[in-house]
Amino acid sequence: MTFVNSSVATRLDGIEVAAVIKQQLRERVAALGAQSITPGLGLLLVGDNPASKSYVLGKERDCKEVGVNSIKIELPESSTFEEIAAAVQELNERNDVTAYIVQLPLPDGIDENKIIELIDPAKDADGLHPTNLGRLVLGVDPQTAVPAPLPCTPLGILKMLEHYNIPLSGKRVAVVGRGITVGRPLSLLLSRRGVDATVIQLHSRSQNIAEEIRNADVVVAAIGSPHFIQPDWIKPGASVLDVGVTRVGTTESGKAKLAGDVAPEVAAVVGALSPNPGGVGPMTRVMLVSNVVEIAERIEKQ
Amino acid sequence: MTFVNSSVATRLDGIEVAAVIKQQLRERVAALGAQSITPGLGLLLVGDNPASKSYVLGKERDCKEVGVNSIKIELPESSTFEEIAAAVQELNERNDVTAYIVQLPLPDGIDENKIIELIDPAKDADGLHPTNLGRLVLGVDPQTAVPAPLPCTPLGILKMLEHYNIPLSGKRVAVVGRGITVGRPLSLLLSRRGVDATVIQLHSRSQNIAEEIRNADVVVAAIGSPHFIQPDWIKPGASVLDVGVTRVGTTESGKAKLAGDVAPEVAAVVGALSPNPGGVGPMTRVMLVSNVVEIAERIEKQ
Repeated sequence: MTFVNSSVATRLDGIEVAAVIKQQLRERVAALGAQSITPGLGLLLVGDNPASKSYVLGKERDCKEVGVNSIKIELPESSTFEEIAAAVQELNERNDVTAYIVQLPLPDGIDENKIIELIDPAKDADGLHPTNLGRLVLGVDPQTAVPAPLPCTPLGILKMLEHYNIPLSGKRVAVVGRGITVGRPLSLLLSRRGVDATVIQLHSRSQNIAEEIRNADVVVAAIGSPHFIQPDWIKPGASVLDVGVTRVGTTESGKAKLAGDVAPEVAAVVGALSPNPGGVGPMTRVMLVSNVVEIAERIEKQ
Repeated sequence: MTFVNSSVATRLDGIEVAAVIKQQLRERVAALGAQSITPGLGLLLVGDNPASKSYVLGKERDCKEVGVNSIKIELPESSTFEEIAAAVQELNERNDVTAYIVQLPLPDGIDENKIIELIDPAKDADGLHPTNLGRLVLGVDPQTAVPAPLPCTPLGILKMLEHYNIPLSGKRVAVVGRGITVGRPLSLLLSRRGVDATVIQLHSRSQNIAEEIRNADVVVAAIGSPHFIQPDWIKPGASVLDVGVTRVGTTESGKAKLAGDVAPEVAAVVGALSPNPGGVGPMTRVMLVSNVVEIAERIEKQ
């Protein structure tokens, strides 16, 4: 089977969009500085997970780039629930920490949900505290919603689609995957008033998944299954965002070999494509910093 | 156009299913009584809205039927935010109130979202506190989710579908309407693991709404638009639940004349139909009492 794409597909480039947003954030941080407010992102890191360490390092760099302080707190792998809870309590109370994250995963045996529920929702930089997710459920109309940080990856996806003027109102958006960091909150975000997408929430148990995707104007793949999305599932000209990532082996130099959820041949059919890597990843990172700045702006208003 | 229904449609009868659940609740309340626990539902009623008064009266009756106490607190229409907040605080503290609701709407000028956020999530009988809705977002796997009361109408719809053995796993369920009491939480509930429906979240801005509904195995109409759903939109044999209700006039005797979201002619096409009234309404009512009993059982475990 061959696929003919009559026009060149738009590359939805997270690095490019993130750079635009970073510039705006620098200006907002400067405006806060003029009022003697410095946003500070707390980073609670428990244990020795190398991936977690590298993520935290990246977040420190992202903060620095826009003038946001970062405050790292490290606890040993052997920490008890009570010790982690005490660190969370400290972060809730510290005035220099205007927002913070608890880097996941936590060591085995620690109830992550219980720890996350201890975060002050007003300082929840990830937007993954249940109270904030519930405000998203209730906030079908953003105009009247209780202000709340939104989860970074779904928010980054939305900002990227907006940046490239991909129409969403009334359109069919297939969200593939029902995870808690992408699929479920993204469905809520896309179906709010003002965005107005028709969301089809797909997952591993969905029947006729190819047909559902074939009728979609926009496909967001976040199912964590390498090259799952096939080219003949895509309506020609549709926008496809590859968000899922799976480790499929090791390169010769010992680095992790990663694969997205979208088969490479899909590129020949789409109207716009956010590849993986280089697509949504940088958007997730910049939206974390954006949440930190927005939370600090909320302090200013009080 | 004529519609031929080869077999008689199943009537999804909320009164019948609610009666079965009430009998189970009586037994659970008796078991709690044996441990000296009496569930008590607080009902906070502010002002003179006649519909609200009648709803609260109905809830008191529902409690009595299964042996649950009800504790009504009435405040005048002129109550300030602070006075209502103080009553909520009292309900949070009272030991005889194991769960409670704040009857909506509150008088003009009172911020309902702010009042609802003051409810102790552990006592939230309606399951509409943001923290509990957020636990539903995070609780994609009910086995590992933080226990939380679920919103009554979505839960009632799910229990009704289960009672009549309507298949949901992998099936297309069209949820028409993105309201906060039905559409949005229902979509989250139906796409959890163990239910596994493919949810299409439709709303007033959706394009091709007729076609989306025509491909659905189950249609839940909660859009609040009289007789919106047309018979030629329904796949023959599909299950249709009419949840929306709109006042369309007044009867000769002065009572409100109500219309559901589903055109009457749809009955000739469906495999199963939950009419309105007589369908989901009694399920919503019984699930409130079910939440009260479940919350009391959680106290017992502590």
